This record gives sequence, C-alpha cells and structure tokens, in this order.
Amino acid sequence: MLSIGVDIGGTKIAAGVVDESGEIITATTRSTPATDAALIEAAVADAVAELQKDHAVVGVGVGAAGFVGADRRTVNFAANLAWRQHPLAEELERLTGLPVVVENDANAAGWAEYRFGAATEAAHMLMVTVGTGLGGAIVLDGQLVRGSAGFAGEIAHVTAVPDGQWCGCGRRGCLEQYTAGTALVRTAKRRAGAGDALMSPLLQAAGGDKREIDGPLITRLAQQGDPGSQELIAEIGTWLGTGLASIASLLDPDVFVVGGGVAAAGDLLLEPARAAYAKNLTARSHRPLAPFVVAGMGNRAGIVGAADLAR
Amino acid sequence: MLSIGVDIGGTKIAAGVVDESGEIITATTRSTPATDAALIEAAVADAVAELQKDHAVVGVGVGAAGFVGADRRTVNFAANLAWRQHPLAEELERLTGLPVVVENDANAAGWAEYRFGAATEAAHMLMVTVGTGLGGAIVLDGQLVRGSAGFAGEIAHVTAVPDGQWCGCGRRGCLEQYTAGTALVRTAKRRAGAGDALMSPLLQAAGGDKREIDGPLITRLAQQGDPGSQELIAEIGTWLGTGLASIASLLDPDVFVVGGGVAAAGDLLLEPARAAYAKNLTARSHRPLAPFVVAGMGNRAGIVGAADLAR
Amino acid sequence: MLSIGVDIGGTKIAAGVVDESGEIITATTRSTPATDAALIEAAVADAVAELQKDHAVVGVGVGAAGFVGADRRTVNFAANLAWRQHPLAEELERLTGLPVVVENDANAAGWAEYRFGAATEAAHMLMVTVGTGLGGAIVLDGQLVRGSAGFAGEIAHVTAVPDGQWCGCGRRGCLEQYTAGTALVRTAKRRAGAGDALMSPLLQAAGGDKREIDGPLITRLAQQGDPGSQELIAEIGTWLGTGLASIASLLDPDVFVVGGGVAAAGDLLLEPARAAYAKNLTARSHRPLAPFVVAGMGNRAGIVGAADLAR
Amino acid sequence: MLSIGVDIGGTKIAAGVVDESGEIITATTRSTPATDAALIEAAVADAVAELQKDHAVVGVGVGAAGFVGADRRTVNFAANLAWRQHPLAEELERLTGLPVVVENDANAAGWAEYRFGAATEAAHMLMVTVGTGLGGAIVLDGQLVRGSAGFAGEIAHVTAVPDGQWCGCGRRGCLEQYTAGTALVRTAKRRAGAGDALMSPLLQAAGGDKREIDGPLITRLAQQGDPGSQELIAEIGTWLGTGLASIASLLDPDVFVVGGGVAAAGDLLLEPARAAYAKNLTARSHRPLAPFVVAGMGNRAGIVGAADLAR
Repeated sequence: MLSIGVDIGGTKIAAGVVDESGEIITATTRSTPATDAALIEAAVADAVAELQKDHAVVGVGVGAAGFVGADRRTVNFAANLAWRQHPLAEELERLTGLPVVVENDANAAGWAEYRFGAATEAAHMLMVTVGTGLGGAIVLDGQLVRGSAGFAGEIAHVTAVPDGQWCGCGRRGCLEQYTAGTALVRTAKRRAGAGDALMSPLLQAAGGDKREIDGPLITRLAQQGDPGSQELIAEIGTWLGTGLASIASLLDPDVFVVGGGVAAAGDLLLEPARAAYAKNLTARSHRPLAPFVVAGMGNRAGIVGAADLAR
Repeated sequence: MLSIGVDIGGTKIAAGVVDESGEIITATTRSTPATDAALIEAAVADAVAELQKDHAVVGVGVGAAGFVGADRRTVNFAANLAWRQHPLAEELERLTGLPVVVENDANAAGWAEYRFGAATEAAHMLMVTVGTGLGGAIVLDGQLVRGSAGFAGEIAHVTAVPDGQWCGCGRRGCLEQYTAGTALVRTAKRRAGAGDALMSPLLQAAGGDKREIDGPLITRLAQQGDPGSQELIAEIGTWLGTGLASIASLLDPDVFVVGGGVAAAGDLLLEPARAAYAKNLTARSHRPLAPFVVAGMGNRAGIVGAADLAR
Repeated sequence: MLSIGVDIGGTKIAAGVVDESGEIITATTRSTPATDAALIEAAVADAVAELQKDHAVVGVGVGAAGFVGADRRTVNFAANLAWRQHPLAEELERLTGLPVVVENDANAAGWAEYRFGAATEAAHMLMVTVGTGLGGAIVLDGQLVRGSAGFAGEIAHVTAVPDGQWCGCGRRGCLEQYTAGTALVRTAKRRAGAGDALMSPLLQAAGGDKREIDGPLITRLAQQGDPGSQELIAEIGTWLGTGLASIASLLDPDVFVVGGGVAAAGDLLLEPARAAYAKNLTARSHRPLAPFVVAGMGNRAGIVGAADLAR
Repeated sequence: MLSIGVDIGGTKIAAGVVDESGEIITATTRSTPATDAALIEAAVADAVAELQKDHAVVGVGVGAAGFVGADRRTVNFAANLAWRQHPLAEELERLTGLPVVVENDANAAGWAEYRFGAATEAAHMLMVTVGTGLGGAIVLDGQLVRGSAGFAGEIAHVTAVPDGQWCGCGRRGCLEQYTAGTALVRTAKRRAGAGDALMSPLLQAAGGDKREIDGPLITRLAQQGDPGSQELIAEIGTWLGTGLASIASLLDPDVFVVGGGVAAAGDLLLEPARAAYAKNLTARSHRPLAPFVVAGMGNRAGIVGAADLAR
C-alpha cells in the first residue's frame, strides 16, 4: 500500500511515493511560491500528479511548518507561508482527487523517526529538531500527540529562563532562544563583538567580520578542535539537556531523538546535553536515563512521516 | 460491572465499590501502617474482603502516592511509604484473589475527573492537584499518560526558576516550590518574619506566632477579604498559570482541572492563574484559551479513578 | 569664580559659562564631528574661545559619554565617538590654554543634581538616567565615585536576570535591557507583534506599523490614560525599583534621583518603582525608604556638573 | 598613639590595645552575655579597664554584628544580640570615660585589611567575608562607605537569582543563599539526600549521616582531592565571582579581598571565582581585572580595624 508524502518548506516542496517500510520509491520537487496559497496548492497538486502517473497510491500526507488543526485538515497559522485558517486538505483533495491529511512538519518528521528511524523500539518518544529554530514531536503509546488545537509538541516555547531573551513569539525566555541555531550564532556574534579572546579563531575564520559567523562554520571549527566553537556548541547542548530534564518530569519518554542541522555536531552537542540531563533529572536515582540518539532519517523524514500518516 | 477502588494515603486507606457511572456504592476505611509493606497489604486485603461480601466485583484498582511502573503492577519508589521496587499488584492478587492494577494516586484522581468529573467533555486534560505538594495527571486522546517508567505527569518537578528554591527532590527551582501549599505557607511565614506589614492580620489570626500560620488559615482570611492573604494566594495562582502556560506549549490540553486543598480558595487562586496563563501562553492570538475549572470529585476521586482503571 | 562646562554628545557639543551657584551665564553649541577626534577637539576649543571672550574662567570641565580614566584626563573607550585611550584633557589644554578635567557625562549630570538640583540635601545619592540607555552616577559622602578605572556607576550592567536578554556589552541580563527606553520600546513592539490586544491603541497611534512605536509615543498615550502604555511604563518602573533595591544593599543612599527621557512619565514610572523598591528592599522594617525624586536640572545638568567639577 | 579595639561576637568579646602600625600590643577576652545589653556593656567596660591599666589610649572602637547608624554611635538592629535603636557608644563612654566609636564588624575587619592587611596598596577595595553568612565592606578613595543608615556593604542581600532561594531577610534570591557556608552545606546535604553519587565520599566521611556534613569537612575533603567536594566549593566560587562582576559595574574596585571560613579553601574557591568574574565582567576588554586576594589579618581584623577607626 503506497502513499505520497509532501514536505512543504519555505523554499522547496519535496514529494515522494513511500511504501509501508518507509522507503521512498520515487521523488520529485517544486519550488515554493511562498506568498500565494493557491500557487502552493497548484505546485503540490502538480507534484502529486507526476508521482501518481506510475504508482497507485491510497492518499496524500502533507507536512507543513505551521499550526495544523487537530482535524488534520486546516492550517491555522504559518509563520512563513500565506495560510491563516486555511482549509488546505480540502483544497488539495479537490485538486488531486485523493484523500489528504495535513500534519505539522516537525510532527511528520518525528513520526518517521518513530516508525522507521531512530526510535522504532520506543513506545514513548520525544523528538527535538535543533535547526535554525527548535522543533518538537511527541509520540506516546504509539500515538502522535497533537493537542487540542494542534499546538502540542511546541517545545520551542517552553520557558527556559523567566524574563529571559525575547522570542519571536512575543514572550520572553523561550527554550528556542537558548538552544537552536539562531541562539548558537547570536551568542558567537555577541561574544566576538565584545572582544572575547576565545572567539578569535572563529572570528578569523569568518574573515574578521562577525556578521559572517554562521552555524556550519561554528560546527566545522568545533570539529577541528577549536575550544571556543566547542564551548558554544556545548552551551547549546547544556541548555537542551536542562530543558529536556524539565520536560521529562511531564512526559517520561523512553528516548530522545535529536535531529536538525545543529545535531550534525554529534557528541559535541549530545554529550553536554546528556550530562545536563542527568544532572537535572528529578528522581534520577530511581529511574533509567532515557538515551539521546541522533535522528536517522535525515531530510527524508518529512516526506516519509507525512506519507505514513496518510495511510 | 462493579469494581473496587482503593486509595492508599499516608494515614488512611479508603476503599469503595464503584459502578460504571462512577458512583461509590459502598465504602470503608482502614488506617495506614505506613512503615510495613506487609501490613499495608493486609489492611487493603481486609478492606477488599469486607466490600466483596455484598458485591460481585471484577477487579481492584489501587492508587498510591509513588512512582508506579508502566506495567501498573510495581511501585518503584514511594516517598512516604515503605515500598522500593515492590510487586504490589502481585501481592494483592495473592491476598484477594482478584485482578489488581496499581496506579499513581494523582493519576487515579485525574482519571476520575476525566471520566466522571470536571473534564468529561475533554479529549486532552491536564489535572493539577494543588495540595501540600503539587500533583499532576495527563490524559491525551482519552489515554492516561504514564510514561516510560511511570513518571509522567510529575508536574511538581518541572523547572519554574533556574537555580531557584531548593526542592526535596534534590534539585532547585521546581514548580512545587512556587505553587503548592508548602510554598504558600512558607512565603507567609517568611514575610511575617521579616516584619511585612501586609502580613499583620494573618500573623494576628495565628495568635502572633508565625509558626501557627497554615494553608486553611490563609484561605479563610483571604475569603474574608484580608488583602495580604489574598496576595499570597494570588501569587501561588500566578506561578501556577505561568507554569501551565509553559506546559501548554508541549501538551495543548482542552482543559485544566485544578484540585487539592489550595483549590478551595476558588477564584482567589484561579483568576490570577488564568490571567498569568493568558499572558504567558505562546501564540495566544492564534488559539483558544483552555479553561481552568475546579475539580468536581473531591476526596472520592482517588477511589473512583482507581476503580475505573481496574475495569 | 566662573568655569566652563562642556557636554559632548553624539550629535551636539553644548558649552556654557557657569557660576558658583550653578547658573549658566552664557552658552553656545557646535555640532559633533563624531568620527574624528581632532575635529571634536577643535570644535570644543572653538566654543571655549567664544565663551572666554566675555568671561574670565578658571578652567574647563568636559563631560563625555565614555569610560574616563580615574585621572580625569583620558578617555579609555567611547561607544559612539572615536576615542580609544585618548588624552583628551591634554589635547584640550594645549588648544585652550586652560586647565581641563574630563568626566563621564552621567557622572557630570549626577554631580549637578547633587550640587544644585534634586539632591542638594543628600550626603549619599544615586542618580539614574533612564534614557535610551541607562546611566548612573554615585555620590557618597559628597564625593563622586569613579572607581579604579573610571567604570564606577555603570548601573546599566548590573545583572538583573541571569541568562536574560543579551546586552550590547556582550553579556546577558544587564539591567539596561529591562529598564531603559530601548527596553520599553522593544517590549511594546514584541507585544504588538504578537497580537496582544492591550497594545492595540498604541499600535493604532503608530499608524498600524509597530516599527513606528517609540518612547515619546508610549509616554504620551500613557499620560492620556491608555492602560497598555501605562502597563509598559509600569513594567520599566518595576524593574527599576527592583534593581535599585538590590543596589541599596550595597550603597544605602539617602535619595535616588531619576532623570532621562523616560522620567518624563513621572509617577507613571516612579510609583511602580517605589512600590517594587519597598517590596524588595532588605531589612525594610529597620530602615527608612530612600525617596525617588525626579531630576531637576534637565538638559543643563551636563554643562553645569562638568563646569563645577572643573573648579 | 594607642587605641583599644573591641570585637563583640555572638559568644566572645575580644579586645586589644592596638598601635598605629596595626599591631596588637596586648589583648583580653570576655564571654558575651548575648541577651542583656547592660551585661554586654559591663563586660566591654571591664575588658577596657583591664587594658587601660598599662597603656594610655586615646579612645575605643567597637565592632559589632548589626546595623550601626551613620553617626557611628547607635546600633539600630542586631540579629543575634539584644540591641534595638541602642545608644551603645553613649553607654560605653559613660562606663569607660573614653571616646567611643561603633562600627559594623564586617566594616571594621575590612578597614583592617585596607589599612594593614591585604589591600594596603588599594584606593578602592571590596572585602567579602565568606563565612557561615556573607559579609561585606567597601572602601572607596580611602573612606569606609557606611551609607545613609549604616546599611552599606550588605553584599549578602544583593539579588543573585530573582525569585530564587528564600533568605532569612524575608526576600528571595539573596547572594548569601548562593555563596556562603550555609549555602555550601545545604547544597551538599540536598545532593547527598537525592542520592547523588558524586556526594558519596563526603557522605561516607560524615559517617553516612548527611546531617553531619559541615563546611570544614567539605573543605578538608576538597583539599584531599575529592571531586564532589571540590565541585561544591567551585560552585560557591562561581556564584561569588558572578556576583562580584555585577557589583564591579557599580563600584569598580582595585581589589577584592576574600576572607571568612570558606576562604580557607584558597584557590579551590578563588580560581572559579576569578574565572566567573572574568567571564561576567562588563567591558572586560577595556579594563583591568581586579585581583582576588585572600584576607591577611585573620581573627585580629575586627580588633585592629575597630581600634584604628577610633583614632
């Protein structure tokens, strides 16, 4: 039984036919006409039509960055795309003639890791995507947790520091402001700007211009042994582990799956995260320490998870 | 189909026969021999035997304050009772001849509210018990969330203030240290001890001895209009609402049910909680505000929830 | 005995002849050629020459935004001007033929308030300038406190929130990020951007464009009774009072003088500041509450204070 | 020119004749009748009479733990002794026939370090006494800073963590709750009580009873290389350095003098303090790092400082 998964990103629409073992049989892409809902839908329908030509599919799953209603049909709000209370599933069903379910993109990716990736042996999983921002997906007892209005799993906006750093969401101290790519780069720039000697190799690698510092550069220098860059990534990891220890009091998962661009730093990120987690976990002498594992599906997770959720 | 629910507290064992509508048909109690596991089990078995005489039951549900394994049979750890990795269900099945399931007491109470009390119309519920300490129970999609090792729902140990007040769990800044009866009374005593004029009526009502200040006294004075006592309860409510706003980013429930002794203060507690919740909820202009309602089952919740979970 | 005071700001150099009672006899201005130290000095010398024509003066006092060495002759660093370890007094003495002392501009203004303005009856004063940023000046036992390297009184960089909002200084959580004009406007924009209904009148007054919100607009609306704008200013005041209560544990001043643009809000700022101060002051039942008074010298403070320090 | 210094502690009154070089010529002690002001004064007068027999002195300086008025004659409040608005100098002048000045004991000790001990080459000094509690003394431009009501230098009650650990003063988050002997021991007990494996050697050295853990035991184990005890002291040091970095924004001292019982740990305390100070100091690339030095006067500081202040 095949289904199609679609991952609508800010710049690219990726779609593929996925089988029941989570393999992508064939795939295609379109660019994202971000500011026009109708054009996005037309592009998705076009990709689906292409994929359908050679494969019989039972439905379409769509992952999108935004708040998706609990009915899995409506996008209530998307920060980077043109949707406001938008009946996305209905529109796509009309255009494709196939049953469509819509899912938040982090949820779709998390579901792929749970079904086919790093957490196939878990019953309860928390996936954290440490990219430019911070994404989350919760699976409990084999069910994806969506919440009342589809807002569940928004780990980015758990409070890390009361009255802390302002967040784009209009509140202060959200975890995303402490453990995501944006936070990593901001800290590097701030410290470089203040003349912090430990930032010198990084600043030099950025051609002396702190504005040129970005996440991949920090990761590369850290992997080459630069102590300043390693400290920056370790700080991100410490905040991550500290935040997840607090969250474990609520959810007590079997495993934490860590994905996203910053996770490319591997143990430079995860070891400090594990240490902070162990240090901050309540009742840690009476319970096992949930492992932190790196996500295994890579960029495919969005397509595969969305497709699987459509079956 | 009847079942027996048992609520093992620190001083009293309460048990009852419960029908499918959540009504307690008949009930009995025993005192708790807290330091001896075998005596506790004998007392529970004795109460069950008494109740069984006149009613045919299909099983026994036991709620206990402690970390109950995900298998619902083992108590891994209990702060106030003698259990460590204790096979409670097995022992009680041997003594009673009935199938037994064990559940954390806050979970049992939360389940009762979900099934028969204040949250019967919800799919996703977070119940918070604001008593001496802080308890929590999570129901998502109609399922009680237990977690990997039975530690889910431990809202008490979500971090409210990094490096904040020391908690009995060995960590700092747990939410319980800011929004529970102990926190309420401690704040009152500290402020009274520092000569805070706003605490004068309360101190006077305590006979001039700050050690005599307790939760019921504060609630009573607050209900009589004492501004200092009202401020104390409002502060507890503000921390509660702030903490729940952070948690809503993860769980996005339909409703918050607030029970426990401090909830007797009603809107003196809940109005500040609602205000802080609304102020701190992420994306609050794109989602409904989950209501805060007072628990409806009272002391019966433990028995009723445990009994229902045994069916 | 007359002296000349010079106030070197980012856009304007203001200078005046000041008598021993703190009156400005005559004044003049030049624009500030901010990026060229020599041009600034030439402009100052030119203004001094003009003022000297009709008045015999004993010396020149110069106030400048920057870190001024304890010798009162060298500017070690200035954020907005071209000085790095710059022998400003020596250069100006060469150009003017008069003895010159240099002082941090907030210190000069604070000294003017202490000698001729709002704090003439105090022995120990802390002046806080709540403008775009946050400035401070400390007078203890009638002496201006400069510190080892001229950095004393930098109240802006006292820590208000550990791991809080990033500051331009390269550290997190500085008081300036919570109680200054920039913080006021940032909070307004963040809340407006998040769709906070309480910000609607302010957003409307800004023509619907949150980028047009500025400090004077917030103050004006607050004075007209807009609850949202009043709340914004009150929050700044609460942080101010909370921060000063902590500082009072160190300095225990007789009086706090509050100046700067945000102080134009008067009691809308000061009442919340006083309340937070009283609430957070240690040992408050054993000591008097230092009053918060509005600065009395206005824009003249820089010139008058610098001139007086030159005598 | 000789004078007498008296150090009134909770259990012992120590007095001595001190010369102008800060040497104690002769000394004596009395026990402290803590609950009766008249008996304390009689004991002090008796000690002074004994010392006067063989030495001509010009006056008496008295150091006492409490809030001493700016007139240096009245004790406004003392936590551990019987004084409330007490005219101590007047009473002692009546009994001894000598001019008497009263000073806060931490101020007296700090003055001794400034005049004869670890800070003789400084103009601006902050002395921190890390004992059971946290004491402070400020000297700026060679003057002891007393403040408006004698409360200056109360570094213990600078806020370290907003809404943090409750303090005996009735407020939350005071620095003393994070960096003093009481904080050190409390952290050790909390971590040991939570089953923290790193605390095992310490717990074992305390005979398995966490209540037996005290400061000297932690220091001893730390000096013997126990990683857990070293971590505990390092944490105290980190909070100390972080707090002093914030304070340096206000006072910018030449030197920090660290005394008190916890300072016996030497660099185990001071190295983390220096590191945290350097990391958190604002504008650290534009200013020198004030050194942290260990106090040099030991127990004599109280007598010597009080005597010197009486001249």
